[in-house]
Amino acid sequence: MIVPVLRISCEAVTGFEFTVQKTDGLARRGELRTPHGAIQTPAFMPVGTRGAVKAVTHRELLDLGAEIILGNTYHLYLKPGDDLIARAGGLHAFIAWNRPLLTDSGGYQVFSLASMRRIREEGAEFRSHLDGSLHLLTPEKATDIQTQLGSDIAMVLDECVASTASHDEVRDAMLRSARWAGRARRRLARLRDAGEERVTITNAGQAQFGIVQGGVHPDLRTHSVQATVEIGFEGYAIGGLSVGEPPAVMYDVVAHTAPQLPHDRPRYLMGTGMPDDLIECVARGIDMFDCVLPTRNARNGQLLTSRGPLVIKNARYGEDSAPPDPGCGCYTCRNFSRAYLRHLYIAGEMTAATLSTIHNLYFYLDTMRRIREAIVFGSFEKLRQEFHQTFSRRPQL
Amino acid sequence: MIVPVLRISCEAVTGFEFTVQKTDGLARRGELRTPHGAIQTPAFMPVGTRGAVKAVTHRELLDLGAEIILGNTYHLYLKPGDDLIARAGGLHAFIAWNRPLLTDSGGYQVFSLASMRRIREEGAEFRSHLDGSLHLLTPEKATDIQTQLGSDIAMVLDECVASTASHDEVRDAMLRSARWAGRARRRLARLRDAGEERVTITNAGQAQFGIVQGGVHPDLRTHSVQATVEIGFEGYAIGGLSVGEPPAVMYDVVAHTAPQLPHDRPRYLMGTGMPDDLIECVARGIDMFDCVLPTRNARNGQLLTSRGPLVIKNARYGEDSAPPDPGCGCYTCRNFSRAYLRHLYIAGEMTAATLSTIHNLYFYLDTMRRIREAIVFGSFEKLRQEFHQTFSRRPQL
Repeated sequence: MIVPVLRISCEAVTGFEFTVQKTDGLARRGELRTPHGAIQTPAFMPVGTRGAVKAVTHRELLDLGAEIILGNTYHLYLKPGDDLIARAGGLHAFIAWNRPLLTDSGGYQVFSLASMRRIREEGAEFRSHLDGSLHLLTPEKATDIQTQLGSDIAMVLDECVASTASHDEVRDAMLRSARWAGRARRRLARLRDAGEERVTITNAGQAQFGIVQGGVHPDLRTHSVQATVEIGFEGYAIGGLSVGEPPAVMYDVVAHTAPQLPHDRPRYLMGTGMPDDLIECVARGIDMFDCVLPTRNARNGQLLTSRGPLVIKNARYGEDSAPPDPGCGCYTCRNFSRAYLRHLYIAGEMTAATLSTIHNLYFYLDTMRRIREAIVFGSFEKLRQEFHQTFSRRPQL
Repeated sequence: MIVPVLRISCEAVTGFEFTVQKTDGLARRGELRTPHGAIQTPAFMPVGTRGAVKAVTHRELLDLGAEIILGNTYHLYLKPGDDLIARAGGLHAFIAWNRPLLTDSGGYQVFSLASMRRIREEGAEFRSHLDGSLHLLTPEKATDIQTQLGSDIAMVLDECVASTASHDEVRDAMLRSARWAGRARRRLARLRDAGEERVTITNAGQAQFGIVQGGVHPDLRTHSVQATVEIGFEGYAIGGLSVGEPPAVMYDVVAHTAPQLPHDRPRYLMGTGMPDDLIECVARGIDMFDCVLPTRNARNGQLLTSRGPLVIKNARYGEDSAPPDPGCGCYTCRNFSRAYLRHLYIAGEMTAATLSTIHNLYFYLDTMRRIREAIVFGSFEKLRQEFHQTFSRRPQL
């Protein structure tokens, strides 16, 4: 059942290097070097959808300790367009973020946002959610766009399936994703070796990650790992999770999949998740995460604290002079009360979104810092237990 | 025609002091000391409507050099309520802003926002724009609310009239405003001397400013100055301008009014204005300004630069790599291009509002810094001429 793909020899990417410095159980403490600087792993990557992490400025992200942010290829391709961004010198230059950037392939947004989509072997045809215009996103096109964006890490196009898909449907999509991965890798090699009119390489040191699919089926995950590793990428992602399956199922898939991936390459779990997910998946060997949850939930008035979610609009916080999380060291918790944040949220002030986003990202990034420290000191298991003792997913009343 | 009011002897306000350090023509370089710190004048006060300057955090305001912000009594009274804020220790504590604060009286918002209003001698009856509830704002009530908010500078309730009002209507409103000013002053004295159940004094050093009305009529302005100064306040505001009259008319009224005000008290021109208004009114003796223009226009995509307004959504900026104002030292101009700001604005990203607000406030606050320096060095007239040589109100195409 191995998909026949050519093994593409890509020149070693300049400036891209991953080293695992310490392990503690399956948890790994590493460093990922990119042309725009190093990322300490395990790392959480805030999502900067359209070239900005919503509700915060770049300097706030730097103050929070964010070392890498993610851009969405789907959004940037539609507006302002990768051609325009390439002419500006690439995404780093266009958005004035001089640290590492990762771009996704656009596949997930085609799946979740586009007003129409049709998957065929060539690629994914879809209509823009903005203006209804028709587009065809192929593995080559997704590679070209990201080459023009010039992120430090590009992702291959994969096919996302609904969480309700049958084993056969998931298998077919996984096999197609593997074929697409081969095409994406070949396209990148061609861009590097021969160049391509109309495609500007704005970051010669861009790495490309493959994506393992296969839903919640161990056999398909194993097959996908083999097919993807066979192609050979600078790093590997696990896709198709955090799409509605119970956490325990997700953890099992990660536990099954991650150890099969090359030990000397970064492992990125896409689109995950809640704070306890991060710890549980680090425990299963994951190095990188991204998720809109801390930023999106912040804008919806949900603060994620060491005790769990706090819904700031609740009347009980109307005169609560405590900070959102008394144990938190973020700008928001050092200065502002629940009562003030509730007032701002109810009044519809943008500042509510900003202060809540600052808190949520701090909590995520600080959790990752604590995880990294714990791995170095061999106390990850202790941290994990302590985290679960205080953190509950049930919103505080 | 002098309104008979009692001269109220108020204890000298602790911690409140105004000194004029230097004059240059009619322009004054001064310092206003308040219980929460000093303000260098001429000063511009960003408007923090509901206890937050829209789209920026307090630390961004401090970084910009804002020394005082303004809160709107109307908004804060309706939500979350002055009682709640008083229980939190006052507005400074509630919003965690430890620098000077000024609150208006609520009169202007009753005039511009309330869904119904009826002015009678007792006060202004209105319906909340939020829930239609009926309220009566009297001079005493406006004083009580601000006493509970505990701003460093409180304003007396005045009656605002439409810019189309006749001389007689403006006169009647001015006379009523003068009577209301006397009632507000007596109320404050009573609160200080005897206290009042249900009114918590959260800032014993709060100063109270009177407001000169009289529209565009010199005779009414002169009368209003006399009546207001007769009562005696820590400072004096000029109200009822920047409501649609041509700039030249506004400048004439300020030129007529400001020199008649006590030379040893701060003079505050309410709700003004465009950057050139600030310079022209400093030239006529004004010490303090507030206006929503820099913050509101920023959210609407209008950047105010040394050359004039720049409408960021214009297609001509689509690939413009220059900062909004190449000569500006703000965070936005030091880092971001017009093309990126245009992209964020068109995409509806909050960050567009934040970065534009940072620029506009920087431009206003930096203009005030340059004005203060010029007065000290006796070169204000030169600065004024240079400013007008480059600044144009016509938006850049």
